Amino acid sequence: MKLLQSTASPFVRKVRVMLIEGGTADQVELVATATTPVDTPADLIAGNPLGKIPCLITDDGDGLYDSRVICEYLDTTIGGGRMIPADGPARWSALRRQALGDGVMDAGVSARYESFFRPEEKRWDGWYDAQIDKITRAVDAMAREVDVLVATLDIGTIACACALSYLDFRFAELGWRDGHAELDNWHASFAERASMQQTAPS
Amino acid sequence: MKLLQSTASPFVRKVRVMLIEGGTADQVELVATATTPVDTPADLIAGNPLGKIPCLITDDGDGLYDSRVICEYLDTTIGGGRMIPADGPARWSALRRQALGDGVMDAGVSARYESFFRPEEKRWDGWYDAQIDKITRAVDAMAREVDVLVATLDIGTIACACALSYLDFRFAELGWRDGHAELDNWHASFAERASMQQTAPS
Repeated sequence: MKLLQSTASPFVRKVRVMLIEGGTADQVELVATATTPVDTPADLIAGNPLGKIPCLITDDGDGLYDSRVICEYLDTTIGGGRMIPADGPARWSALRRQALGDGVMDAGVSARYESFFRPEEKRWDGWYDAQIDKITRAVDAMAREVDVLVATLDIGTIACACALSYLDFRFAELGWRDGHAELDNWHASFAERASMQQTAPS
Repeated sequence: MKLLQSTASPFVRKVRVMLIEGGTADQVELVATATTPVDTPADLIAGNPLGKIPCLITDDGDGLYDSRVICEYLDTTIGGGRMIPADGPARWSALRRQALGDGVMDAGVSARYESFFRPEEKRWDGWYDAQIDKITRAVDAMAREVDVLVATLDIGTIACACALSYLDFRFAELGWRDGHAELDNWHASFAERASMQQTAPS
């Protein structure tokens, strides 16, 4: 299998951290692809018509997307189902926390496009601020369930960790740690794991 | 259970179509919420800190999001698992087609915000055009697997149908049917279902 990816993408990082935590990263070849929101390479389009990373090319040559589908496919087929609980409250907790982390990544990437990628005269503070509001509220929500994050290693925990690390990468000035000492402690500990160290954006 | 929703959202429509197809729509109370990308009501924030619809409030009072997590939760807890195959190739096909439909909705909503919601002097054709490119490629991909859409009623099929109907709702000028007669035939037939008729944007 091949994973079309870039190290700057938090969604890619989520997949890679999950693989490393499960001990199966050696079964997926990493293929770097250079994509921007307005310029998508042909190999990526062939795998994912939406032109987004990550995209998994399975052993059958099929393109699988997006990051959530890839995570579940890999956890099921080679991961032994250890990162996404099969059913019950643990599953809904994991999937909802994944959606929370993914939502921070989405808002963060959107704010990044607004403040960096978009031509300067076309930038709109209203959009940027709304994304930061989403991020702020979502980080507050993570802090309210920090006990679950501390106690649980699953796709939801990984997504939240990757989301916070993305904030460090692109929005250091946001100061998400302010008022969130326990969340900071958890994240600092998680960030030391080999899976996070090996997937830091370059 | 309560679903915080608005009829204009294609992600909400996906959830509602799935419920109606499964015969369980009467178990979920619809609660209208007026949200914009930059102004989110408090009841929605309480359920989903990301401030997005749909948001499900479970019988325990917990907020569940986003649409994919809600669909799987409802299909599992009250739907008898009929709309999301439990495992194997059918599951990956359904989830990937759902991601394809969701991707069209995401790109469509983003293009709509760019061309309608954003202040006129801040609009950027490059962004709008890139979203339309994603949509065009994704519709081409749906057309290539129209046989699967015709033969299968699952969350992937529902997502693709809702995505195409969203294009009709907001991007009629795009002419997605051009060159896609079979996809058009399938969609026209699907759009006649009671589930689609009862969830048309008002």
